[in-house]
Amino acid sequence: MEDLYHTLDSLYREMVEIRRYLHQHPELSFEEVETPKFIAEYHRNLGNEVRTQVGGRGVVAILKGKRPGPTVALRADFDALPIQEENDVPYKSKFPGKMHACGHDGHTATLLVLAKAFQSIKETIAGNIVFIHQHAEEVAPGGAIAMIEDGCLEGVDVIFGTHLWSTIPLGDITYRPGPFMAAADKFEIKIQGKGGHGALPHLSKDSIVIGSQLVLNLQQIVSRRVDPLEPAVLSIGSFVAENAHNIIADSVFMAGTVRTMNEKTRNFIEKEIDRIVNGVCSASDATYTYTYNKGYPPVMNHADQCEFLARIAQNVPDVVNVYETPPIMGGEDFAYYLQHVKGVFFFTGAMNPDWEIVYPHHHPKFDIDERAMLIAAKTLGSLAVNYMKKS
Amino acid sequence: MEDLYHTLDSLYREMVEIRRYLHQHPELSFEEVETPKFIAEYHRNLGNEVRTQVGGRGVVAILKGKRPGPTVALRADFDALPIQEENDVPYKSKFPGKMHACGHDGHTATLLVLAKAFQSIKETIAGNIVFIHQHAEEVAPGGAIAMIEDGCLEGVDVIFGTHLWSTIPLGDITYRPGPFMAAADKFEIKIQGKGGHGALPHLSKDSIVIGSQLVLNLQQIVSRRVDPLEPAVLSIGSFVAENAHNIIADSVFMAGTVRTMNEKTRNFIEKEIDRIVNGVCSASDATYTYTYNKGYPPVMNHADQCEFLARIAQNVPDVVNVYETPPIMGGEDFAYYLQHVKGVFFFTGAMNPDWEIVYPHHHPKFDIDERAMLIAAKTLGSLAVNYMKKS
Amino acid sequence: MEDLYHTLDSLYREMVEIRRYLHQHPELSFEEVETPKFIAEYHRNLGNEVRTQVGGRGVVAILKGKRPGPTVALRADFDALPIQEENDVPYKSKFPGKMHACGHDGHTATLLVLAKAFQSIKETIAGNIVFIHQHAEEVAPGGAIAMIEDGCLEGVDVIFGTHLWSTIPLGDITYRPGPFMAAADKFEIKIQGKGGHGALPHLSKDSIVIGSQLVLNLQQIVSRRVDPLEPAVLSIGSFVAENAHNIIADSVFMAGTVRTMNEKTRNFIEKEIDRIVNGVCSASDATYTYTYNKGYPPVMNHADQCEFLARIAQNVPDVVNVYETPPIMGGEDFAYYLQHVKGVFFFTGAMNPDWEIVYPHHHPKFDIDERAMLIAAKTLGSLAVNYMKKS
Amino acid sequence: MEDLYHTLDSLYREMVEIRRYLHQHPELSFEEVETPKFIAEYHRNLGNEVRTQVGGRGVVAILKGKRPGPTVALRADFDALPIQEENDVPYKSKFPGKMHACGHDGHTATLLVLAKAFQSIKETIAGNIVFIHQHAEEVAPGGAIAMIEDGCLEGVDVIFGTHLWSTIPLGDITYRPGPFMAAADKFEIKIQGKGGHGALPHLSKDSIVIGSQLVLNLQQIVSRRVDPLEPAVLSIGSFVAENAHNIIADSVFMAGTVRTMNEKTRNFIEKEIDRIVNGVCSASDATYTYTYNKGYPPVMNHADQCEFLARIAQNVPDVVNVYETPPIMGGEDFAYYLQHVKGVFFFTGAMNPDWEIVYPHHHPKFDIDERAMLIAAKTLGSLAVNYMKKS
Repeated sequence: MEDLYHTLDSLYREMVEIRRYLHQHPELSFEEVETPKFIAEYHRNLGNEVRTQVGGRGVVAILKGKRPGPTVALRADFDALPIQEENDVPYKSKFPGKMHACGHDGHTATLLVLAKAFQSIKETIAGNIVFIHQHAEEVAPGGAIAMIEDGCLEGVDVIFGTHLWSTIPLGDITYRPGPFMAAADKFEIKIQGKGGHGALPHLSKDSIVIGSQLVLNLQQIVSRRVDPLEPAVLSIGSFVAENAHNIIADSVFMAGTVRTMNEKTRNFIEKEIDRIVNGVCSASDATYTYTYNKGYPPVMNHADQCEFLARIAQNVPDVVNVYETPPIMGGEDFAYYLQHVKGVFFFTGAMNPDWEIVYPHHHPKFDIDERAMLIAAKTLGSLAVNYMKKS
Repeated sequence: MEDLYHTLDSLYREMVEIRRYLHQHPELSFEEVETPKFIAEYHRNLGNEVRTQVGGRGVVAILKGKRPGPTVALRADFDALPIQEENDVPYKSKFPGKMHACGHDGHTATLLVLAKAFQSIKETIAGNIVFIHQHAEEVAPGGAIAMIEDGCLEGVDVIFGTHLWSTIPLGDITYRPGPFMAAADKFEIKIQGKGGHGALPHLSKDSIVIGSQLVLNLQQIVSRRVDPLEPAVLSIGSFVAENAHNIIADSVFMAGTVRTMNEKTRNFIEKEIDRIVNGVCSASDATYTYTYNKGYPPVMNHADQCEFLARIAQNVPDVVNVYETPPIMGGEDFAYYLQHVKGVFFFTGAMNPDWEIVYPHHHPKFDIDERAMLIAAKTLGSLAVNYMKKS
Repeated sequence: MEDLYHTLDSLYREMVEIRRYLHQHPELSFEEVETPKFIAEYHRNLGNEVRTQVGGRGVVAILKGKRPGPTVALRADFDALPIQEENDVPYKSKFPGKMHACGHDGHTATLLVLAKAFQSIKETIAGNIVFIHQHAEEVAPGGAIAMIEDGCLEGVDVIFGTHLWSTIPLGDITYRPGPFMAAADKFEIKIQGKGGHGALPHLSKDSIVIGSQLVLNLQQIVSRRVDPLEPAVLSIGSFVAENAHNIIADSVFMAGTVRTMNEKTRNFIEKEIDRIVNGVCSASDATYTYTYNKGYPPVMNHADQCEFLARIAQNVPDVVNVYETPPIMGGEDFAYYLQHVKGVFFFTGAMNPDWEIVYPHHHPKFDIDERAMLIAAKTLGSLAVNYMKKS
Repeated sequence: MEDLYHTLDSLYREMVEIRRYLHQHPELSFEEVETPKFIAEYHRNLGNEVRTQVGGRGVVAILKGKRPGPTVALRADFDALPIQEENDVPYKSKFPGKMHACGHDGHTATLLVLAKAFQSIKETIAGNIVFIHQHAEEVAPGGAIAMIEDGCLEGVDVIFGTHLWSTIPLGDITYRPGPFMAAADKFEIKIQGKGGHGALPHLSKDSIVIGSQLVLNLQQIVSRRVDPLEPAVLSIGSFVAENAHNIIADSVFMAGTVRTMNEKTRNFIEKEIDRIVNGVCSASDATYTYTYNKGYPPVMNHADQCEFLARIAQNVPDVVNVYETPPIMGGEDFAYYLQHVKGVFFFTGAMNPDWEIVYPHHHPKFDIDERAMLIAAKTLGSLAVNYMKKS
């Protein structure tokens, strides 16, 4: 392992350069053109087998070891966000309104340079390493599901992935067996009452009153109907009935999100919302439309791979703490890979309060301590190498 | 009229005696035995035609005038209440737990003595006077409906009735054309959720939460669904789910009252409650039972008889004020008589703050200024005589 | 009276012409220029004393009788509405987006031609007639209050006014002693919670949930806190919290209307809303702003003038029915005149289903059966003449 | 260890006899007399040092090893429940209405016989073993807190305890580091509105409506205010306002339970309930009383002792599975011991579907597969012996 670590150390400058280049050239989800081109070119130069337009815009590169062994996949996503960057840095986004505000530029730089580093130990590799460069992680349905359908996991035995995380201290590696990140779904409800004059409530059906009953009744899903030991959130972000003050609202539009950690609870909540909307509207002789759009499933880490990660990460240079965390309520389409092969997704701390690198993901001032990339590369590298060794 | 008034004045002492005798011997609704016997005997002694057990326990007496003319009915009810009297008076109820706490003893004394007074002007009467002594006004379905079915209104052209009223000053006569007293109905709802351990809400259906939603949703009937110009009340008096603190309630029992001033609103509310209970329970996958028991209909006074009363009452000795009032939300089965013949029901003030006669009806300290009986007798007498005169 | 009636009959054609001219030239509230000029000119031509710019844009004309007597005021308003007319008639509004959709053109034509007709009986008039032509009835604070402050009621003994009403049959005159039209107020509430990510409710204060509790709690004002015999309405027309679906709303804006029939209930509701908003926000540690803007007070007709109207109107030619109605929940700034002098405001039926004149006030297809103007003129004329006679 | 295991095997018959004897002679919490006498006698016969009336009714026995070493405490509770047994077994409770329906009879038999078995290896013991026989686990404040105050943990280095569990299969041992069992608290709220006649809501303050608002608002604590990853339950078990149907409720009484897994959340909820009751009552001008009674704190297992248990238990004969479980929402006053010394509390599976031993704790048909006692004794014994060995 020391060889790989040294090589990575020597390539750190390049890693930073690639990350900064990508940061200046962000491309939105499902609109990526130059980024996959850049990635494919990089792998071709390394001599890896490259497949492009995988599942749309993804890139898959393969390093075939000299000796037989298992196939390990490493994944990095590469799309950016429609956010106007507010950082005043030399590598600031050159595209107004677009920004790598979630660190996918860092993920990509990490994986590319790790691929280059693997070349230095190529002779010792017994097995194959598949580099999955995924487009469109930020926007459902995401790129993962299409890349999987297009074969990116064929022959893969195990998959590892990490997210650089700006609110976890540099040097920390966190993970969790079982549910690690939530399913994040969206629902929309339109209540159709009957408009009228504010002075004549009896001739109308007051959508605002019905909508308010609905909001309160929906609180029950988490407070009464879901197992208290099962994390779940239902939030209504929008409630709109904009009329003159002396009108009774004809209709109300509501939109919200549901976060869950397992499919059973998720499907249960989807149905319970319908039951409640139906009952509440029926009580007021109103009608409704209800749509529930599933985002990514929960990221379910495999227990044995978590243990493996915990053991490996403890020995990676510059890693200070490795620990289990509670799950977090955000979502990730890495979840789909874990539905097909075993593996683990973990966070690599990238916060640095001394440099004011503390802003949360998707914030216009988001940034990472770039040294986190080196830690991530070493950890992923060690996972791959050691996985092949032990097999 | 002066003759009749003088006769009544001279019989006032007897009126008081009768009232106090009845006060000491209260009989509950549908249990009246001695009171109707006493009434029938009194009329027989006057020489009136008497029919007993009318509609069960009612007594009807007829004074046939010497000359032809219209038939005028006068009604007094005679049942008492299951209340323990707290007045310390010589004529206090002799029966523990029973009390004439609504003044029906006074009504009866008024009508009996008025009947005796009519004897003195019998020669001048052109028409018939029907004395309707009604049992069971206090308890639905009431005595009126049965007495009507048993013919007490046969041949009757017009009906007059009054209620001695302990919160209206002595000397006042009040009335209202159209809705004067409310329909007073009762409903009961049982919500059947699913009991369970307080720590495991997801395995149960929390009846208390469902019941609370129902209570709030029912507020809408008055606030949103009934015409704001239409008086209506929906009150829930009982909400019972008595369990250990760490249990989830299996069921909730609720009981309430609905007060309305017209049949349309009444029937509408009966149906809307069902709609709301149904919707609220359906939203929580609970079941329910719902019963709605109609009490008396609203007392609807006839406009021309109100005008007639207003004109007559102004000339009755000791009457100080005669005026229209807003309707009151209490009920009376005099309503049924007015569905069959024209007429008017009015209040005769019986309050006297100087003597602390101010307690509301059904109060253990309820009493009347007995001089109100004399005013009532004179007003009813004048209504009857003048009605016959003008016809 | 017959003389006045005949003169009015002969001037009917002119009345229609004036009304149609005004209909084609609508002017919005507080923007009236040509209409008051037209009115002033008309009265000057009749030889009446004219004062312009009364309270801003009002016009007051006085006909002084030859003999002494009381001063009777008659009022007509003359502003139009910001509505695009949808009637296809020769006299359609010439100004896009402006329309006499409430009949004030008819009120003005009625009063002007009545003023001309009075000239024919000028010799017999004992007293003075004040013609109050009011601007800006449609928009609070309205023209009445400013005209009164500017002296339009000086010396006035009684005031009469009518509204042509498109949903009451032609030939009917309706009125009501006491509350006839409602106070119509406006309130606005902003709830300030604390925004946040939809997945992290515990770090925020959910304004939509708080707002929903508020909506349901406010239902109680009408259902529980106001006397059931007292008409009152509280409607929330706007509830706006427009955010992404996965956000927790930072704040909610609500606007609504309150309708009442007396000042006590009105002031009570204003305070109760505050109490409820305060309690609900306090329960969730949120803050709020609350404003309550009083519109016109209730129109309170004087009982004796109502009786006078009822008697007079029955004898007006073409009047078919004269009757009391329940109050209506709409507002009128005629209310202010009745706070200063006695009088009555009534409706003159102007509906004609045969001609499809059935649309409600403020509707783009609103129209009147113009013969209603003649009935209105005769009734107002008869009220004035007879009032002076009896005094 | 094998020696101890064999001795225990040979004493299994006695263990069953003791358990059955205790089962037939249940004593309620804080009323235990014969049971502690029995226990003390048993230990005295073994030659252990015995202290009685520890913290009231507890018994503490000490086995002093020949050689120096750590002091290990083992705890068993011995109170029964006020439940009428419905099992038809030879060892059925002889006391109507009292029953060992939670397995404490088994705990006691386990610990007594284990104490006897220790005699056989007394020579090898380096350290002391403290046998804590606790009264009154079932009823707050429980016996543990008083026994601790009375010195039962003096000199103790570590404590182990187990609960035989009727819904976990025989052969399974389950545990959890950190929160294992919940804090179980009780709250009571009385809302004081103002009673009145159901027809006159405006003269009263409707406690049922206020109470219903409270119930719905309290749902928010779990749905909106507590971290979704933090297990919490708030259930209202009682909502009582029992009146005639046509009354407005003067007051409402509510009682409920709160379950949490950490002190911070627990204290937070206690305060939030107050905030909500205060706001809701203030919105309706009502008053209230609110009491919050803390039950036992959460059982917080020490991580290193959990690991120790996991390792030890795997080697105990007849133990099939050893695994971490989610926390459970029930409470235990073992929590107090763990606030003073390190240790672990775990469940020993005692379910046996073949013999219909499947009923939950506190059920009238609750029973245990008695072989679970042997497993529990061996596990506790092994924990003690190995703990002393490694120290």
